Amino acid sequence: MLKELTVGGDIKGTQISNSLLSLLFKQGTMVKRVAVVLSGCGVYDGTEVHEASAVLVHLSRAGAKVQMFAPNADQMHVVNHIEGKPTAEKRNVLQESARIARGDVTDLKKLDVAGQDALIIPGGFGVAKNLCSWATQGKDCTVQPEVEQAIKSFHKAGKPLGLCCISPVLAAKILPGCEITVGHDKECDKWPYAQTACTMKEMGCKHVNKNVGEVHVDVKNKLVTTSAFMCNAPIHEVFDGVGVMVTEVLKLA
Amino acid sequence: MLKELTVGGDIKGTQISNSLLSLLFKQGTMVKRVAVVLSGCGVYDGTEVHEASAVLVHLSRAGAKVQMFAPNADQMHVVNHIEGKPTAEKRNVLQESARIARGDVTDLKKLDVAGQDALIIPGGFGVAKNLCSWATQGKDCTVQPEVEQAIKSFHKAGKPLGLCCISPVLAAKILPGCEITVGHDKECDKWPYAQTACTMKEMGCKHVNKNVGEVHVDVKNKLVTTSAFMCNAPIHEVFDGVGVMVTEVLKLA
Repeated sequence: MLKELTVGGDIKGTQISNSLLSLLFKQGTMVKRVAVVLSGCGVYDGTEVHEASAVLVHLSRAGAKVQMFAPNADQMHVVNHIEGKPTAEKRNVLQESARIARGDVTDLKKLDVAGQDALIIPGGFGVAKNLCSWATQGKDCTVQPEVEQAIKSFHKAGKPLGLCCISPVLAAKILPGCEITVGHDKECDKWPYAQTACTMKEMGCKHVNKNVGEVHVDVKNKLVTTSAFMCNAPIHEVFDGVGVMVTEVLKLA
Repeated sequence: MLKELTVGGDIKGTQISNSLLSLLFKQGTMVKRVAVVLSGCGVYDGTEVHEASAVLVHLSRAGAKVQMFAPNADQMHVVNHIEGKPTAEKRNVLQESARIARGDVTDLKKLDVAGQDALIIPGGFGVAKNLCSWATQGKDCTVQPEVEQAIKSFHKAGKPLGLCCISPVLAAKILPGCEITVGHDKECDKWPYAQTACTMKEMGCKHVNKNVGEVHVDVKNKLVTTSAFMCNAPIHEVFDGVGVMVTEVLKLA
């Protein structure tokens, strides 16, 4: 990034002059580079598209430079989103993620922590099916090796992680004892997946009840989590909650 | 809607009492019912997911009641979004649209104008491939019969239409002489699809140059258009432009 910036660069389609870049450096408003990891396209077998879109809108507004990644692997399965049932089809996680990324998505194995300031993983069942095996194994799940490597690398480098919806299970598995929220821990119409919070406590995490517009920040682990669609909330409230997560991640970056 | 409201109703997961509904009636802030028509899931062969998400976020914030629709038909083709090339796969427009709608999407043939106050169609190549044949036939295209019926019905009933990105071609074809914007009419890096504006003029429409954050309102036809991703703009600017479109549509509803 430094090399790119000192010679001027094209960021988000806008030609940035060296003098402006120097000014940004001096003002401490350096452009933050954020890796966003996707897991397909569609809530029941991939990334939840509205959570991903909210992440991208808020990062864009904050002037961050985004690069999207996904594993180049088969999806666990393909779900007919009307019937909610698996079909006989096969789809590739990277190719389907490209539907959200408008074609601009990179194989996750190429993610280099040195080139990024933060990592954000939106939710959707794709996280629990393609990034780990939570959907079938719960707390005994395994995490996809490239995802595990990415989370460990960012954590070790002291770079923040932003996880929403079901994505915090990845942190629960990889960063034992971390503090997270997936919303509330008492099941009701508004919190249909509250059992997840209880499972995370069983895994040794501290779960903090938070509303959909709120996040929990685990300062020690530089980990920001929010419930998003774990809450049965209007979509604009999910959008706003994701926005708080993005803001807190960028503060830590 | 009247029947539903006078007996109380569950809107967006919130139980609304009859007294509150009466108050809403009195204050003239009646809940607006908006039909959103999708054309698949993914910019190159379906609905542009971020435009659809922006439409839903802004409608949700405005308190509108949304129902999503899509044709129950095969997509024109399926595009590998990394390579930008068609594959041998077959996918159904309604099923793929359900990825954006989180399962809650209705066959377009069931859309009844009497039950809705406005119609919004987000963009993406799915509009030009699955809702009409613009992608292959340009101004000589035909419009999918259910889409044509929907647009004509809303127009005849004096109910507003909101179209963004490439969707205004539908109005250009069905409402001869209407006023629209698809952005700017001079091609450059920022406006790579400017030729579309010229074609619309050839079709007898009045094209009005507008920036990505702006809309054009054809008051006579109750038609609101905005360029969205016809502009090579950061995603938050597209989000905001779609927001202006939603606001103007709701004003006319």
